[in-house]
Amino acid sequence: MRDFSQGHEWLSINTATVRKQWRLDRIVDECARRGIRAISPWRDQVAAVGLTALAKQLRDAGVVLSGYCRGGFFPAADEAGLQAAIDDNRRAIDEACTLRAPCLVLVVGSLPGALDGKPAYRDIARARAEVRDGIAATLEHARAAGMPLAIEPLHPMQAAERACINTLEQALDLCDELDAARGGALGVAVDLYHVWWDPKLAQQIARAGRERLLAFHVCDWLSPTRDLLNDRGMMGDGVIEIRKVRGWMEAAGYAGFAEVEIFSDHWWSRPGDEVLDTCIARLRSVV
Amino acid sequence: MRDFSQGHEWLSINTATVRKQWRLDRIVDECARRGIRAISPWRDQVAAVGLTALAKQLRDAGVVLSGYCRGGFFPAADEAGLQAAIDDNRRAIDEACTLRAPCLVLVVGSLPGALDGKPAYRDIARARAEVRDGIAATLEHARAAGMPLAIEPLHPMQAAERACINTLEQALDLCDELDAARGGALGVAVDLYHVWWDPKLAQQIARAGRERLLAFHVCDWLSPTRDLLNDRGMMGDGVIEIRKVRGWMEAAGYAGFAEVEIFSDHWWSRPGDEVLDTCIARLRSVV
Repeated sequence: MRDFSQGHEWLSINTATVRKQWRLDRIVDECARRGIRAISPWRDQVAAVGLTALAKQLRDAGVVLSGYCRGGFFPAADEAGLQAAIDDNRRAIDEACTLRAPCLVLVVGSLPGALDGKPAYRDIARARAEVRDGIAATLEHARAAGMPLAIEPLHPMQAAERACINTLEQALDLCDELDAARGGALGVAVDLYHVWWDPKLAQQIARAGRERLLAFHVCDWLSPTRDLLNDRGMMGDGVIEIRKVRGWMEAAGYAGFAEVEIFSDHWWSRPGDEVLDTCIARLRSVV
Repeated sequence: MRDFSQGHEWLSINTATVRKQWRLDRIVDECARRGIRAISPWRDQVAAVGLTALAKQLRDAGVVLSGYCRGGFFPAADEAGLQAAIDDNRRAIDEACTLRAPCLVLVVGSLPGALDGKPAYRDIARARAEVRDGIAATLEHARAAGMPLAIEPLHPMQAAERACINTLEQALDLCDELDAARGGALGVAVDLYHVWWDPKLAQQIARAGRERLLAFHVCDWLSPTRDLLNDRGMMGDGVIEIRKVRGWMEAAGYAGFAEVEIFSDHWWSRPGDEVLDTCIARLRSVV
């Protein structure tokens, strides 16, 4: 297992972590000057600075991506909506290619309209089928572009609005169904926040293996957690056995970045410098 | 599948649903006069009116139990704590016998101290082992008393504080480990709120079968959900396909009560009469 205590070369910052403090170009600068080698940006943040400009800035700064956030949200109330989602995912793949991302992270979606409080239907099995079909329809373009898709299982408390894939086992079953050859085009993003509770976590990480383990997101689960969306904890402030799970990841062959992704009203209210410096310190002491 | 649209003979009220409106003796009266045949009371509510007095009131009113809430909370920071939990579960079994409950529902506990914001350790695998040992140590007394134990998997968002058994599959694996003969002493309580999201729900309900399906709790999952504990919805107000899941339960052999269990700041703020009348109406129209 890699020793993270002496440096932070394997740290990546998911740019949502400081999205309320800084625009994306500033985030890249702040990471670069701290020796943070990688980021994972969100599409809306990229659009705000411009795709081409960002690609150039990243090259100049020597900062790479650990992933691109995000594709997904496949289910829809009608055929036009389903097709629009597939088209949008193809654009996301092209953007990810421009940014030389190692993978496009998929938050797959669930009951259409639920994010706005108006679910068009309640049949989660239908949403799951639409996710399967949407990924299948996207996979061809992803393979042609050489851009792996990383299915991110989300916490079951987000099953209605954000993702109807809620366990690593479920994500891997889908990978096996759509990419039986394990050709590298389809895998998973393991985000500790979403999967830490799973009694089958160790078993399923081992099952995934190197070909399927495309990203590793770290933060912590606060006890108590006060909000279903924006109360993630900094590593070390909660109850997740982070190093233990990283050990499972590495034993299964994962050798990439540990990407800090913290949606938190608390951390969004702190100075960006403090947040990044804390990420570095906690990576070394906790992760 | 039973037709619930014409009457509410299979309705039970988990007494937490109106705990802030009425004392338990009043709840029993209010249920009886509405033709609600069953309740599932909590130990603290029972203690407030007295075990013997309640047992007599129930007999006089012709109201039965669909379960007794609750045993569990097995993990502890030291041996004395582990033993105290086992002793307390034995007392809960005896109370359940006095009240002629069909089962004692187990909220198994998780990281000790986490409910008070001070987890004594973070090793959830240890908590799971302590739960297994605690149930094993309790099972002998339960068998002797003829009181089945119903393991209730709780939603993964409550995995740190309340229960480290978080899927029906995990609960059934434990049942198989401790009661391989399926002798009726150990089973599960299926609470829609906790398990609705599970992609293996239908499969695991079928696996459980009649011997293991000891209780069925209904409410709804609101989208969005605003609180991790006290924002359950009334049946029909959320996204759970309640009737579909009841169909799976009945196909697997379950023929007992549908127990309405709603922890909700909203419903606690409404008149108790309105809450019970709504439960009856929604059971008929939605469940």
